[in-house]
Amino acid sequence: MSRGKFITLEGGEGVGKSTNLKFITQWLTDHNIPFIQTREPGGTPLAEQLRELLLAKRDEPVDSTAELLMVFAARAQHLVQVIVPALERGEWVICDRFTDATYAYQGGGRQLDRSLIEQLEKTVQGELRPDKVLLLDLDPEIGLERAARTGAADRFESEHLAFFHRVRNAYRERAGASPSRYAIVDASQSLERVQRDLGQELERLL
Amino acid sequence: MSRGKFITLEGGEGVGKSTNLKFITQWLTDHNIPFIQTREPGGTPLAEQLRELLLAKRDEPVDSTAELLMVFAARAQHLVQVIVPALERGEWVICDRFTDATYAYQGGGRQLDRSLIEQLEKTVQGELRPDKVLLLDLDPEIGLERAARTGAADRFESEHLAFFHRVRNAYRERAGASPSRYAIVDASQSLERVQRDLGQELERLL
Repeated sequence: MSRGKFITLEGGEGVGKSTNLKFITQWLTDHNIPFIQTREPGGTPLAEQLRELLLAKRDEPVDSTAELLMVFAARAQHLVQVIVPALERGEWVICDRFTDATYAYQGGGRQLDRSLIEQLEKTVQGELRPDKVLLLDLDPEIGLERAARTGAADRFESEHLAFFHRVRNAYRERAGASPSRYAIVDASQSLERVQRDLGQELERLL
Repeated sequence: MSRGKFITLEGGEGVGKSTNLKFITQWLTDHNIPFIQTREPGGTPLAEQLRELLLAKRDEPVDSTAELLMVFAARAQHLVQVIVPALERGEWVICDRFTDATYAYQGGGRQLDRSLIEQLEKTVQGELRPDKVLLLDLDPEIGLERAARTGAADRFESEHLAFFHRVRNAYRERAGASPSRYAIVDASQSLERVQRDLGQELERLL
């Protein structure tokens, strides 16, 4: 039995991740590929509790290093309990955000030292990396406008526009540096075209 | 104005930390020394929430690296929000457990790689270390028996005896390696003698 593929869906606020996750899981079902769908931060009871602490708006300013360590704590738990066992069972793992989001939000957005993120990535993941990162790319001004329609903003969504420009740039830089592992999908296109692009990327993984 | 002293009180289960914390804060009050009393994990609203997640008994096995990262996330927040500002105001900080507990519980107890703890210590604390570590040392068989009288066991207190022997040994090794910064107090003595020893150590800090 071969190891499953590890696919992550990435992007800033309002890029259409939820809608496109449904498209991806439908595509996998149509192709009879066993898979699990999960998300970060989260994916286990403890990691979901950490997610709640991370997203909650609070009076206390949250130290960026504390935030980064919480993200990787949730990731360590998620990998050991959920992601690695699924891949080893031969299932594909579709994860809504993963370590690229850490480089984008904590590295780009919060401007934390990238070498610290690299160090934690190595500690928590060893050599494990996604087989394919599907990056939904969109101007944050459009994305934030879309996101504002979907409900109350969490602690990250409440950041300023400059933060989200840094997030987008960090995502794009990472994708540009490893083009074989990343697919940048233009999320400003019609949903039909976005999903045609996603479908083409998934076909290539077969 | 001079920087305050940073004092930590360490030890395994049932060594008498609570009783002796009261003695220490009374001693500081008697000597007109401004101080704050705090604890780890915890000390800020977010760090206390992380403490709850860390101590809660749960069906999900907790990955040791996830646990370690949560401990240091709470510590980063605690240092930035509480400990460093107090020391800079010239107040002494009396902290119920700190990084020595991480070396003892996660390093000794859980047998995690010490170099990973050292790396995180450097990331989160920079060069900050306690001025004095007061280590209440006790055979864990006696300590656990005492602790069992004080209520329901948390996730750590539910570990086996071998775990607590490793915790004690890790504490003693660290104290032995830096005798000027550590005071090992024999917690099997009468409370009167324990507090005489603690008082002598505090006098030396003046």
